[in-house]
Amino acid sequence: MDNAKRAQVLTEALPYIQEYAGKIVVVKYGGNAMKNPELKKAVMGDIVLLSMIGVKVVVVHGGGPEISDMLKKTGKQSEFVDGLRVTDDETMDIVQMVLSGKVGKDLVSLVQSIGGKAIGISGVDAGIIEAKILDERLGNVGEITAINTKPVLDLLDLGYIPIISTIAGDKSGNRYNINADTAAAQIAGRLGAESMLAMTDIAGLMEDKDDLSTLIPTVRIEEIPVFIEKGVISGGMIPKVQSCVEAIEHGVKKVFIIDGRVPHSILIELLTDEGLGTMFI
Amino acid sequence: MDNAKRAQVLTEALPYIQEYAGKIVVVKYGGNAMKNPELKKAVMGDIVLLSMIGVKVVVVHGGGPEISDMLKKTGKQSEFVDGLRVTDDETMDIVQMVLSGKVGKDLVSLVQSIGGKAIGISGVDAGIIEAKILDERLGNVGEITAINTKPVLDLLDLGYIPIISTIAGDKSGNRYNINADTAAAQIAGRLGAESMLAMTDIAGLMEDKDDLSTLIPTVRIEEIPVFIEKGVISGGMIPKVQSCVEAIEHGVKKVFIIDGRVPHSILIELLTDEGLGTMFI
Amino acid sequence: MDNAKRAQVLTEALPYIQEYAGKIVVVKYGGNAMKNPELKKAVMGDIVLLSMIGVKVVVVHGGGPEISDMLKKTGKQSEFVDGLRVTDDETMDIVQMVLSGKVGKDLVSLVQSIGGKAIGISGVDAGIIEAKILDERLGNVGEITAINTKPVLDLLDLGYIPIISTIAGDKSGNRYNINADTAAAQIAGRLGAESMLAMTDIAGLMEDKDDLSTLIPTVRIEEIPVFIEKGVISGGMIPKVQSCVEAIEHGVKKVFIIDGRVPHSILIELLTDEGLGTMFI
Amino acid sequence: MDNAKRAQVLTEALPYIQEYAGKIVVVKYGGNAMKNPELKKAVMGDIVLLSMIGVKVVVVHGGGPEISDMLKKTGKQSEFVDGLRVTDDETMDIVQMVLSGKVGKDLVSLVQSIGGKAIGISGVDAGIIEAKILDERLGNVGEITAINTKPVLDLLDLGYIPIISTIAGDKSGNRYNINADTAAAQIAGRLGAESMLAMTDIAGLMEDKDDLSTLIPTVRIEEIPVFIEKGVISGGMIPKVQSCVEAIEHGVKKVFIIDGRVPHSILIELLTDEGLGTMFI
Amino acid sequence: MDNAKRAQVLTEALPYIQEYAGKIVVVKYGGNAMKNPELKKAVMGDIVLLSMIGVKVVVVHGGGPEISDMLKKTGKQSEFVDGLRVTDDETMDIVQMVLSGKVGKDLVSLVQSIGGKAIGISGVDAGIIEAKILDERLGNVGEITAINTKPVLDLLDLGYIPIISTIAGDKSGNRYNINADTAAAQIAGRLGAESMLAMTDIAGLMEDKDDLSTLIPTVRIEEIPVFIEKGVISGGMIPKVQSCVEAIEHGVKKVFIIDGRVPHSILIELLTDEGLGTMFI
Amino acid sequence: MDNAKRAQVLTEALPYIQEYAGKIVVVKYGGNAMKNPELKKAVMGDIVLLSMIGVKVVVVHGGGPEISDMLKKTGKQSEFVDGLRVTDDETMDIVQMVLSGKVGKDLVSLVQSIGGKAIGISGVDAGIIEAKILDERLGNVGEITAINTKPVLDLLDLGYIPIISTIAGDKSGNRYNINADTAAAQIAGRLGAESMLAMTDIAGLMEDKDDLSTLIPTVRIEEIPVFIEKGVISGGMIPKVQSCVEAIEHGVKKVFIIDGRVPHSILIELLTDEGLGTMFI
Repeated sequence: MDNAKRAQVLTEALPYIQEYAGKIVVVKYGGNAMKNPELKKAVMGDIVLLSMIGVKVVVVHGGGPEISDMLKKTGKQSEFVDGLRVTDDETMDIVQMVLSGKVGKDLVSLVQSIGGKAIGISGVDAGIIEAKILDERLGNVGEITAINTKPVLDLLDLGYIPIISTIAGDKSGNRYNINADTAAAQIAGRLGAESMLAMTDIAGLMEDKDDLSTLIPTVRIEEIPVFIEKGVISGGMIPKVQSCVEAIEHGVKKVFIIDGRVPHSILIELLTDEGLGTMFI
Repeated sequence: MDNAKRAQVLTEALPYIQEYAGKIVVVKYGGNAMKNPELKKAVMGDIVLLSMIGVKVVVVHGGGPEISDMLKKTGKQSEFVDGLRVTDDETMDIVQMVLSGKVGKDLVSLVQSIGGKAIGISGVDAGIIEAKILDERLGNVGEITAINTKPVLDLLDLGYIPIISTIAGDKSGNRYNINADTAAAQIAGRLGAESMLAMTDIAGLMEDKDDLSTLIPTVRIEEIPVFIEKGVISGGMIPKVQSCVEAIEHGVKKVFIIDGRVPHSILIELLTDEGLGTMFI
Repeated sequence: MDNAKRAQVLTEALPYIQEYAGKIVVVKYGGNAMKNPELKKAVMGDIVLLSMIGVKVVVVHGGGPEISDMLKKTGKQSEFVDGLRVTDDETMDIVQMVLSGKVGKDLVSLVQSIGGKAIGISGVDAGIIEAKILDERLGNVGEITAINTKPVLDLLDLGYIPIISTIAGDKSGNRYNINADTAAAQIAGRLGAESMLAMTDIAGLMEDKDDLSTLIPTVRIEEIPVFIEKGVISGGMIPKVQSCVEAIEHGVKKVFIIDGRVPHSILIELLTDEGLGTMFI
Repeated sequence: MDNAKRAQVLTEALPYIQEYAGKIVVVKYGGNAMKNPELKKAVMGDIVLLSMIGVKVVVVHGGGPEISDMLKKTGKQSEFVDGLRVTDDETMDIVQMVLSGKVGKDLVSLVQSIGGKAIGISGVDAGIIEAKILDERLGNVGEITAINTKPVLDLLDLGYIPIISTIAGDKSGNRYNINADTAAAQIAGRLGAESMLAMTDIAGLMEDKDDLSTLIPTVRIEEIPVFIEKGVISGGMIPKVQSCVEAIEHGVKKVFIIDGRVPHSILIELLTDEGLGTMFI
Repeated sequence: MDNAKRAQVLTEALPYIQEYAGKIVVVKYGGNAMKNPELKKAVMGDIVLLSMIGVKVVVVHGGGPEISDMLKKTGKQSEFVDGLRVTDDETMDIVQMVLSGKVGKDLVSLVQSIGGKAIGISGVDAGIIEAKILDERLGNVGEITAINTKPVLDLLDLGYIPIISTIAGDKSGNRYNINADTAAAQIAGRLGAESMLAMTDIAGLMEDKDDLSTLIPTVRIEEIPVFIEKGVISGGMIPKVQSCVEAIEHGVKKVFIIDGRVPHSILIELLTDEGLGTMFI
Repeated sequence: MDNAKRAQVLTEALPYIQEYAGKIVVVKYGGNAMKNPELKKAVMGDIVLLSMIGVKVVVVHGGGPEISDMLKKTGKQSEFVDGLRVTDDETMDIVQMVLSGKVGKDLVSLVQSIGGKAIGISGVDAGIIEAKILDERLGNVGEITAINTKPVLDLLDLGYIPIISTIAGDKSGNRYNINADTAAAQIAGRLGAESMLAMTDIAGLMEDKDDLSTLIPTVRIEEIPVFIEKGVISGGMIPKVQSCVEAIEHGVKKVFIIDGRVPHSILIELLTDEGLGTMFI
């Protein structure tokens, strides 16, 4: 492609840049985009680019597969209650270590190498996420009780990209394992984010999940129960969609489920006229 | 072109955006890019885009052809001394009116319609350019005696794009007609600009001006006398090149002569790996 | 006069200075005070003085006579509809050029020579005045749809005196010719100005316009219809008075019609115990 | 006098206002101007006016006569060494009380009633003036060892007029009686004041002290020894002139001895073309 | 005591430091703590310590005994009306001098010698306390009409400890003698203080004033009439308690009567688990 | 101990608080104080207390024993070169995870539960520590090439306690294992810290390491070679002492080796008159 066309592309991005400049965008990072090194680099590149053009990006991540790997490596057996893994203290240590020490810091390292400025924090730092026990039988699995946005806004104002791992604390020094989708939704809501993008491993909601032509570009939150009933939203997508609803109810203007398997899906969603995934309103 | 390619293009612009973010770039606007409405819109679009991605852009413009048109319209006869037009008081009024009232405000209007925030000022406003008489016989033709950068920096800090018409004043309330190339060079120098782009109607300096393949991408300022001697730099290009030298001597890091006839030549020069015109170092 | 008396005069101005310090005063500049060079200099001197003692002065000006001169000079014939001049695109160019390029910049030049710091802007700059077509038959004659005070306040905060020429723009890049009295009133209102002074060529409202002793010092806006009926307010004064009413309705505390033919009428009105013209409340 | 003349007077003050706006002026207040209630009010009025037009005024005062009155009232006998009054602890209490509690607060009260904002402090407050014993035999008479300008600049920046009584402290909690002329000179010097005005009970330095026509408008500090030898400067004027020299040596640009018996002598000196007293350069 | 225990004590103060950091505490200083040099130094040490750990301390003081001493010294006879001393102009001068010039400045001097930064002001400075005549027969005894907290907050923000003597002014330059308990209560209320500590010469409210074991640690303001009826609150304590009620009604969260005769009673009250005196809620 | 004594202790800490208020203190945290939960809590309590009284505390920690535990748990065999453990990529992952994800976040959690505000970062975050390979054979063991203090100062200015784990990055996204003593010394030096406290498991340098009475309170850095020769400094203490020397050479004013086994050794060292360990100057 010649540079005249490149300039044309940049020029066409202008109205989208104007729309998001100075606004907060929360990226819930996960799925394949987190495993594949090429995709990982593309996502972090997108985030640095957004940050350079004045968007205030916050990354929220979980890290289920890496936690499982580490538990296996250390020979830790997991117990399950109602199909949910019990997070005993030893497991909590692994969760905390993997999310804050491995996944988060690896992302920071990648962002820094691309020329961005990232700081990796967890919900425990400066009391950003406070939680309580969700269910005694599940151990340290937490339910969010408060979000303290001040430290996140402080970092954004200083020009840093906060990369948040979803563990939480409480006033007594306990730590909790928090669902990352829910955490992202609540953080986005409390920050008054312009938009939240949840990266998944699907193209978006589809009437027929095997037929890309049936992708549903926009869903109104009141239609969701019908979609669940019809099976369009099912299985692991149900909690994910619920966290999108939660984000909208907390005041986020636009919430997207985007396909994390497509390189640069964030830029395509935000800076072009194409809607890649499904937008909730 | 599909959006994946668009995202790719945006991604490739990242290192260039990082290079210029927060820096001052002075665009000396003139020539064909100022006459052709399509080019005019493309230039202003480029400037708004640069401004959105954090570049502090200052536009400096003259307006010779529009001044000549207006003089003709009002039936004013021009007198010449040594081939230079005498700027008597009546002519000065026309110069001031056309530059500040017509050319500058039209650019402001265009920038505003693209979604930028521009303020059109002249060298008289807040004493930005002070001058004295260059040659008694030429009337109000001025030689710059001082540049006051404070008001320009004030506007940049507030996020406005200053569009400066090149008339100057003095402490006694006289007004002067100033050469726009010289004014741009001195303003860029005093602002400590990262780069100055002078828009011309040529592709750049060429060994053989009819053969684009002889374009000289980079010229060291000590080579210039040789190029003048060889005729590579001649006629109207001599003062233009001299103003580039002046800019470099005043501390501007990179000075470019770019081809104003190519749409988006500013973006191509600054945000791609292609060097369109000639760079002076 | 000896200096003891001078000191006495300065001392007596103190309570008035205290009343206006830090407040915004909008001067609608026009009429004879704009034609006579002596008066012009006196008005600008008053404005610089007010600015030095901490008053935030905004000057709003039209320039009817200079526009007419220029139209005549360029041989442009004006068409009229219902007695109002049609502003076609060519006329609009002249209006814009004369107001922003000639009248406004001449005032800036004068203020600078007196030691003030002025920046001449128009309603197009940074979108200060937005308008739409008032009447299709009148061409580019505009009706104000929005006032954006941010850029004016930015300039005031930085210590500059904004001198505003009354042309307006819209989001599509059109420009409009705006009535200066209305523009001044709306700008004053939106700025929350302490007072607006409209300079005219009469001593104020008079019961008998040939008898200065019948000057009406204060008019309540509800009395105006009666004064119009009685012919005290008539002809060109009707729209001028209506703009004063508009200013008060927009929240300006004190609106004055002052006699622009009297040197230093602004200082006399604001800094002495004498009410020169008519105050609307 | 009519208001046109008043406006003229205000206008003529403009260049002087421009000269002093934003600059620091230290007024050493004393003599008759401190005893006569009319003069006192005029001086404080001048100071409030200067403060309103943007001059940063600092008042430094002593209060010899009021101290003597109070000592007499309390029946305290003073002892003298080499003609200088010994300041024992009991006397020091009286000095501190009269200067900080009576003279200073009365000035504050007067300034407040004129509409200014004054804060009365002493050299002890926030460690503004530090001193040590000058001569063991004189008790608490102090010699300045350090001036801490920070608190004075803090008050000026917040828009207050600091009124400083000239007592000093040290790190051990001792208090010292300080010569007010010297204190004013050192404070002015350390503040980088534009000018210092020392109010006295003479018209200025005069070749023949009984003939006003022999007033010396300007004295170069190197001429002073000659003037002392000739007797032009003699008696109590010698230390006063020495403090003026000290102020100049500490960097004050213009130092004046002005006639405190003339109402508004401060305004006349600063805001008119008349030089009332003697300027040292 | 060894340093391990010292460290333990510091550690135990942490929760109290956290409770008060950044909050405003008003100390009404008076009684024995003001007469005894040892206690005086201990109180000022406590205040400097509080200031160092981030508490914004304001000291409000009267000075009855020192005023009486000075009146006696100057041979001034006091007249009484209904048992209250008439404050004629001469007495007012003494009151002002002693409070602002002696008591206040002595405290400033002491704070400075301990390494704190204090500025001694009165209610007249910058119009902090405005008053009117309480009763014509009492002369310059004033009743507070307005509290202007801006100058006090300005000083606190700059890190100074304001030491306020309780004289007041009005717009006409009159000065008033103000009850210090009332002034402290109103200042604390208007500053939105976290707490006010009134130093007295009793251990607190006691059921039996001769039996320390009957100390009442907490009093609800609605119980006060009963305590007055029972004689628990009587004599000079009645107005003191009323000013505590006033402070609470003006919004102060916690108001304490503490025993000024106990060294470091302020620190004990604020930074330990012991409640020394009586708290009103 | 009664509260009067407690108040006395607090009072005696005042001069030490005044000495450190607003200054930066770097605590190199390690050894027993990091293993024993009681000591850990005491150290973090000391740090929160210092932070409350205005000291800007930075914590730098390693975590050797926890790294070894984790390596053992995951069955990772370590290879050694010249007695130094080779940090291959897998080991680096464990190091990063344990330091940033476990040790650091546990400290943050503890500080938060005591009421402090901590943010746990690593040298990778925002490029705080940059490094290069020290020795190819040791894998990812790094040698510091640059310290970027800006993010640390940003956090301190916002009132957070930065808790830094000593891993480093480079421009290519590599991560390095860094010696914590060296990192602390260089960070302290580049921050211009007032003091650095290195926590160890000895009482300080002792002439005879079994006789506490031979503790050397102060060592001049030029004496160190002699002490090494004499065997007073030997084994693991040599690099620790070298990092102290490095800190002093980088400009830290006071460097202490303190006994981490003594509860509150930080407070005792900084806020009492007792010097617990050895000070290097």
